[in-house]
Amino acid sequence: MSLTRVHNFAVSLDGFGTGDVQSLAAPFGHAGERLHEWMFGTRWWKGAGSGGGVDDAFVRQHDPGIGAEIMGAGKYGFPGWHEDPEWKGHWGPNPPFHTPVYVMTHHTRPSIEMEGGTTFHFIDGTPAEILEAARAAAGGEDVRLGGGATTIRDFVKAGLVDYMHIVVVPIMLGRGVRLWDGLEGIDADYAIESISAPSGVTHVTFTRAKD
Amino acid sequence: MSLTRVHNFAVSLDGFGTGDVQSLAAPFGHAGERLHEWMFGTRWWKGAGSGGGVDDAFVRQHDPGIGAEIMGAGKYGFPGWHEDPEWKGHWGPNPPFHTPVYVMTHHTRPSIEMEGGTTFHFIDGTPAEILEAARAAAGGEDVRLGGGATTIRDFVKAGLVDYMHIVVVPIMLGRGVRLWDGLEGIDADYAIESISAPSGVTHVTFTRAKD
Repeated sequence: MSLTRVHNFAVSLDGFGTGDVQSLAAPFGHAGERLHEWMFGTRWWKGAGSGGGVDDAFVRQHDPGIGAEIMGAGKYGFPGWHEDPEWKGHWGPNPPFHTPVYVMTHHTRPSIEMEGGTTFHFIDGTPAEILEAARAAAGGEDVRLGGGATTIRDFVKAGLVDYMHIVVVPIMLGRGVRLWDGLEGIDADYAIESISAPSGVTHVTFTRAKD
Repeated sequence: MSLTRVHNFAVSLDGFGTGDVQSLAAPFGHAGERLHEWMFGTRWWKGAGSGGGVDDAFVRQHDPGIGAEIMGAGKYGFPGWHEDPEWKGHWGPNPPFHTPVYVMTHHTRPSIEMEGGTTFHFIDGTPAEILEAARAAAGGEDVRLGGGATTIRDFVKAGLVDYMHIVVVPIMLGRGVRLWDGLEGIDADYAIESISAPSGVTHVTFTRAKD
């Protein structure tokens, strides 16, 4: 069975998945890199092999078993990327996805094939429709939901997310885009576990309860 | 030195310190008892002695070294208690404070002496003024800031809180009163630690950084 999974999505202690004001040059606004420093401390990031503790164990779950990613237009390049015909995302010529990536947007354009197996597809539709397209491309593997906060929220509200790994970072952003908005009662649908790491972050996992 | 401390203040994963709609009969609104079940599982609550793990260790810090409490009018009995001349709080004849308690309110009334050392005083003023009164009554001991969410936030914003223990409970309330509102950047003023407990909650402590 192909699952829909969220990995390594970081929020501040007050629940913001990004700061503001976002721009192409500052995709996380005033949060800068602070939501992701925990990741830069892992062996996975530093390239020193396996065995790096809790943060490292979680960060490495991003890729295995994933056959496609879905991301919001904001993650691809909010705001204004669609006015730039040359925009190919934030990740350089070889993006870290290595699968088809479905960018949710009203501004569709021809697909862009990158190095390393990543192809960006631009697709308009409901979360369920976009998930269907991504799942068909995933070849029986899972679909990763890449964010941002609004995209994750919309898929959770639609009941489409099977597993979600959120990283709570001990900073107070005060403003930006909240992940936790309008999700009343979803704790009834998921087993929720929390584990705090020596780096200071807390990993929170949501695993859909079996029917 | 007398400190201002917050203990055992629970919020949902999405940051609400109470649900809604609050009433005298349902002081936490639709949250019911869910924000406090972690506490009911401790040896401290169940009366079985010491040695009960992380939750128990934290819950027992509520009393030692405290000489007075400050609470918002909402904790004392939101809404409408001031229309009831007989209202003496939610805690019965022997409230669990055992010190002077300063209730912040525009509706002041004569002090009420309860059993067990608790006396409710009704006081109007700024957070700094009320803290000054409570500190004077605390006889050199610390002052506990008892909540609710709005009261804690106001004191944190005023720079008056030295230590804060927040319990993040893995439920999604979706609505109510947020603790984390308008506190941008306070992580610069505090050392923040998180520890997840087997019960499922995560204890987050804020300790004011030395100047």
